[in-house]
Amino acid sequence: MLTKKLALSPDRCFSPEPVQRRLAHQFFDSISALPLVCPHGHVDPALLANPAARFGSPTELFIIPDHYLLRMLYSRGIPLQALGIPTSDGSPAETDHRKIWQLFAEHFYLFQGTPSGLWLKDELTNVFGVDEPLNSRTAGYIYDYLERLLALPEFSPRALFKRFNIEVLCTTDAASDTLENQRSLHEEGFTQIRPTFRPDAVVNLDAPGWRENLTKLESTVGKEISTYATFIKALEERRAFFKKMGATATDQGAATPYTTRLSDQEAEAIFARALTGKLNPGDVENFTGHMFMEMARMSVEDGLVMQMHCGVMRNHNPALFETFGSDKGADIPLKIEWTQNLRPLLSAYGNDRRFSLILFGMDESTYSRELAPLAGHYPTILLGPPWWFHDSVNGMERYFNQVMETAGLYNTAGFNDDTRAFVSIPARHNVWRRVACNWLAGLVTRGLVEEEEGYDMARALAYDLAKVAYKLD
Amino acid sequence: MLTKKLALSPDRCFSPEPVQRRLAHQFFDSISALPLVCPHGHVDPALLANPAARFGSPTELFIIPDHYLLRMLYSRGIPLQALGIPTSDGSPAETDHRKIWQLFAEHFYLFQGTPSGLWLKDELTNVFGVDEPLNSRTAGYIYDYLERLLALPEFSPRALFKRFNIEVLCTTDAASDTLENQRSLHEEGFTQIRPTFRPDAVVNLDAPGWRENLTKLESTVGKEISTYATFIKALEERRAFFKKMGATATDQGAATPYTTRLSDQEAEAIFARALTGKLNPGDVENFTGHMFMEMARMSVEDGLVMQMHCGVMRNHNPALFETFGSDKGADIPLKIEWTQNLRPLLSAYGNDRRFSLILFGMDESTYSRELAPLAGHYPTILLGPPWWFHDSVNGMERYFNQVMETAGLYNTAGFNDDTRAFVSIPARHNVWRRVACNWLAGLVTRGLVEEEEGYDMARALAYDLAKVAYKLD
Amino acid sequence: MLTKKLALSPDRCFSPEPVQRRLAHQFFDSISALPLVCPHGHVDPALLANPAARFGSPTELFIIPDHYLLRMLYSRGIPLQALGIPTSDGSPAETDHRKIWQLFAEHFYLFQGTPSGLWLKDELTNVFGVDEPLNSRTAGYIYDYLERLLALPEFSPRALFKRFNIEVLCTTDAASDTLENQRSLHEEGFTQIRPTFRPDAVVNLDAPGWRENLTKLESTVGKEISTYATFIKALEERRAFFKKMGATATDQGAATPYTTRLSDQEAEAIFARALTGKLNPGDVENFTGHMFMEMARMSVEDGLVMQMHCGVMRNHNPALFETFGSDKGADIPLKIEWTQNLRPLLSAYGNDRRFSLILFGMDESTYSRELAPLAGHYPTILLGPPWWFHDSVNGMERYFNQVMETAGLYNTAGFNDDTRAFVSIPARHNVWRRVACNWLAGLVTRGLVEEEEGYDMARALAYDLAKVAYKLD
Repeated sequence: MLTKKLALSPDRCFSPEPVQRRLAHQFFDSISALPLVCPHGHVDPALLANPAARFGSPTELFIIPDHYLLRMLYSRGIPLQALGIPTSDGSPAETDHRKIWQLFAEHFYLFQGTPSGLWLKDELTNVFGVDEPLNSRTAGYIYDYLERLLALPEFSPRALFKRFNIEVLCTTDAASDTLENQRSLHEEGFTQIRPTFRPDAVVNLDAPGWRENLTKLESTVGKEISTYATFIKALEERRAFFKKMGATATDQGAATPYTTRLSDQEAEAIFARALTGKLNPGDVENFTGHMFMEMARMSVEDGLVMQMHCGVMRNHNPALFETFGSDKGADIPLKIEWTQNLRPLLSAYGNDRRFSLILFGMDESTYSRELAPLAGHYPTILLGPPWWFHDSVNGMERYFNQVMETAGLYNTAGFNDDTRAFVSIPARHNVWRRVACNWLAGLVTRGLVEEEEGYDMARALAYDLAKVAYKLD
Repeated sequence: MLTKKLALSPDRCFSPEPVQRRLAHQFFDSISALPLVCPHGHVDPALLANPAARFGSPTELFIIPDHYLLRMLYSRGIPLQALGIPTSDGSPAETDHRKIWQLFAEHFYLFQGTPSGLWLKDELTNVFGVDEPLNSRTAGYIYDYLERLLALPEFSPRALFKRFNIEVLCTTDAASDTLENQRSLHEEGFTQIRPTFRPDAVVNLDAPGWRENLTKLESTVGKEISTYATFIKALEERRAFFKKMGATATDQGAATPYTTRLSDQEAEAIFARALTGKLNPGDVENFTGHMFMEMARMSVEDGLVMQMHCGVMRNHNPALFETFGSDKGADIPLKIEWTQNLRPLLSAYGNDRRFSLILFGMDESTYSRELAPLAGHYPTILLGPPWWFHDSVNGMERYFNQVMETAGLYNTAGFNDDTRAFVSIPARHNVWRRVACNWLAGLVTRGLVEEEEGYDMARALAYDLAKVAYKLD
Repeated sequence: MLTKKLALSPDRCFSPEPVQRRLAHQFFDSISALPLVCPHGHVDPALLANPAARFGSPTELFIIPDHYLLRMLYSRGIPLQALGIPTSDGSPAETDHRKIWQLFAEHFYLFQGTPSGLWLKDELTNVFGVDEPLNSRTAGYIYDYLERLLALPEFSPRALFKRFNIEVLCTTDAASDTLENQRSLHEEGFTQIRPTFRPDAVVNLDAPGWRENLTKLESTVGKEISTYATFIKALEERRAFFKKMGATATDQGAATPYTTRLSDQEAEAIFARALTGKLNPGDVENFTGHMFMEMARMSVEDGLVMQMHCGVMRNHNPALFETFGSDKGADIPLKIEWTQNLRPLLSAYGNDRRFSLILFGMDESTYSRELAPLAGHYPTILLGPPWWFHDSVNGMERYFNQVMETAGLYNTAGFNDDTRAFVSIPARHNVWRRVACNWLAGLVTRGLVEEEEGYDMARALAYDLAKVAYKLD
């Protein structure tokens, strides 16, 4: 049992070597007040659109929606029902939020040395002013304290948005989304909340509920989508609308970055088979690969930055998926091949100065082998920051050490928090900024970069690169 | 030529940074007296079962059985015959052990910076009290000195077993093994020596001598095994016997962790083909993949922990294999895919609280990409420590840095020495404990873990995790 | 904008930890005066063969031929035409070298933290005595200064060759090369400039201009090459000639290290199809795989060391290739598999003491998984130093940490600079020597290697290993 006060080390993420640590502090001090640029993430815009919105109980805020926490707790034998996750089979889920919080606190030691542990400690300390470590003894007290705060207007999503000094926040929205929340936010003056066009639910033919997703899209565009040609037209219309609503980027996810150009006839035929629900083997992969090409083509035309997030098997655990649905911590990364898979797309659009492509994957063996060389050659490619499991102290260090020598700093896209956990945003940026400054301090103390350059590079990593990459200037 | 005394640095494996080093020492001091838990290894139980057993000459103890040494010496042009390895073609092997030792000592510099070098220096110093470096000049003197000691009862296997403070030692035994050695050890009170059920020789249809192995199994169970159904029954019987004899785990090795559920008919048909020696393409892989499923099913039923060691091509060098046989240092790792290969097995048993699976591989690119995410989700998966070539200072550091942030400490299985070199056991645990403590000291000095937590984590890594993972409490 | 003087830190590449740094300096001081051994590279021998040769303008020396610089500048949107690269489509390329230099200087910040940046700073400082940082303000002044120096005899290739203290320099030459440059160099006494036999242009049937390359070979050997048998004979003749001209090694590059032994009939049939330009699917891969076997067979017979450079997709960007040709920075690495691909070759020649094979790849995930175990077993395999993108501070540290524990120091081939940028040779060796000494200092300060051993290992890495590996003693 811990006996000390909860205290975040002011030196966290910094090398213990005194000279490097001192310099890391200097770099960090020079950038720590910069606003947060959040060009990719999953915050629900409804949270911000409604001034009366509240986060709910501490359990609703911290535990129930966070698949990072759920997966770890589940991995140590805690049933998701006990964490309040509703089931599709009608088996009862715990509804006593204070009890769920107690269970969580008893297992908080599981997060020792993990990014979730670091973020949570930062949130409790710096957002809410908790000054005791979270454990079974303190759980109840801290729950009550948080519950009180969360009811206050000062802890509403809107209030925290301002307090967090977020300069821009991009949400991620389905192709069929009417963007009502963004519209009302913009009308209130929150123009820094921008949508991102994510058409996975309709371009990946194996997306759960594809037919229903398409129906929603039909409803949004007000037209029947009975052919590939009308499908493409609908997507183009929607992109134009998103752009009008402030979007500067799109995003697509797939298991593999395979790209291929189908003929219109082939694309029509696959789309027709999808509508009848009778796909042939290879149809899904070929259509997704083709739609990467089409989305790139549209990006050339409308200037939206294209993002690809590849290499995850979603819903690896079928039983869990059936009972609890997606996003419960059961997505597992896959190895990826970029060099050959992206070649068709890059041969078509890789030299086009109107095009911009940001790549994300979780196969770190591709950092130095494929991603950095690709970004270090093609004028259209930038590398996204370490994604998901690698959004961590070590993940960032590996990224810096494996990417930067070959890609160069200016072929990277800065940081994005990629989170649906709104309250964790400052903590996540804080880790990135600290690790970046410590890496730069290491370069300077090892004589590889001048100290003056280090300040510029720190600012770029903390702020400038993300704005430039996502055309948010 | 070295002129200094052989001296193991008390700081070995620790960062040169003084604050981190001091803390690493503190953590290490807190756990260095804990008994050794050895839940997986290849020590011959006959060594311990016979009170009169001796290790033989220094060459028989250190060189002839150690494929880590053989491979390195062979790689630098020393024929295995010159190291006393018997040949199948009748070509003469050196029999003068003092001469072999001299040859080894002349090449001991080849092990600079390798784990074998570190272990050997530790063994010579701490087990035998050698205080000079091993080289061509000292070889004869050290040989004579060791030879004298090895004849003494204080240096018998039994005596060292006690001196090493081994709390539990699991051997690895064929499915057909009658476990006579374990039986006599238990009768003498050595109940802490436990068998492990390893059925590779009969479940992998391409195992060398498969038919003979099956005959041995028939002989042990006292029944003909002429069908797949009787084969499964025999394995179940043997598992029950192993469990009665103290086994808490099984182990299986294969080139790939491919898992697949065959129908009983398919399994019967393949097994029948194996008996006639006329396998079809794919039979071996499918049967091994199916037997992974069956072994998991049996583990659910009998509670034995299941281990998988995957991703090695055995006997890569055919000419060497023909002349000298297996385990002479010619096994080479392969890349592995876990995410897709394990899915059938995990879909069937991955959520079953009665099941426990420990994974080992030598493809480090899967640490952060596949293994840590799998262990960080499935309640049934633990990750084994760095295996074989990666049982080294850097191998462990990579493991800690690439696994722990995602899997969390408590989804790992602590350490096991996996060795047939009994005398090296304390040295191997020593390296693990030192590297672990240094890693923890790094986390604390970088503000990522509290110092108090570090002590708990050090103890878990040195002792508790292995006991829990292998149900040795 | 930098305001300080350009100053290379004397501590560059060394750990900031004072004890490790001090020891790294001591190791470095002990080896920094050793001559440079350059057993593999792409320096044009004509540069040295002609005593009147000059490097041309600073732009011709530093920018136009350096695909490391071109790729980074291109990746940030600078057209290759603006850098003076001639086009095949007749579009005009910049010819004002002073203007190109200015453009380069304005973008020199892109090379912060990259090996190119480090080498260039070293070259400007230590070869040319430039004492200001290169940027838009200083560009013109530095250009004029360099232009003056480059016209002087003291800065001729020959003069620098002597000043650089190069003990041996191996060039890389096509199978059809008459080696006239080497011949005249040898006649002048420059016997330390040796050719290397690289037959890619004729053994890889998909090499650009394969038919013309074969015609050149026919012309050199003075015989028609109309069959596979005469082709093999021609290669054997040429190897004998290269050997007579001082060659000690061959080199081959391919996308994959796939090896296979074809029957003479199969080889004849593929070769015949190649002559008619009508290859079947698989012919190219099978023929290259077979020629690896044949080159190994010839190496057994003539004693030339065999090098394999595998795992790069050449000319990934078709549009760029069409306009600007090869070697403009558009080659992208691929993942590689060595364990299974090399097995046929190693089964045939891997134990033959007359054979020696040095392996290079850019898939770092194979360092610890495949390459180090292969080198740590087969007496014929050595590992080449980190190649191309990984010829960098971090690339070397990864190599040392991932290779050495398993392969051992003496199964590696030291350093080679692999460069066509003659003036960068000392800078490249300097980085290697520094990183090696810092790595050794880390081993000693962590108690893993004795200080005395460190001096021997430093010398081996800086000098001895390369000489032994390439039989340059």
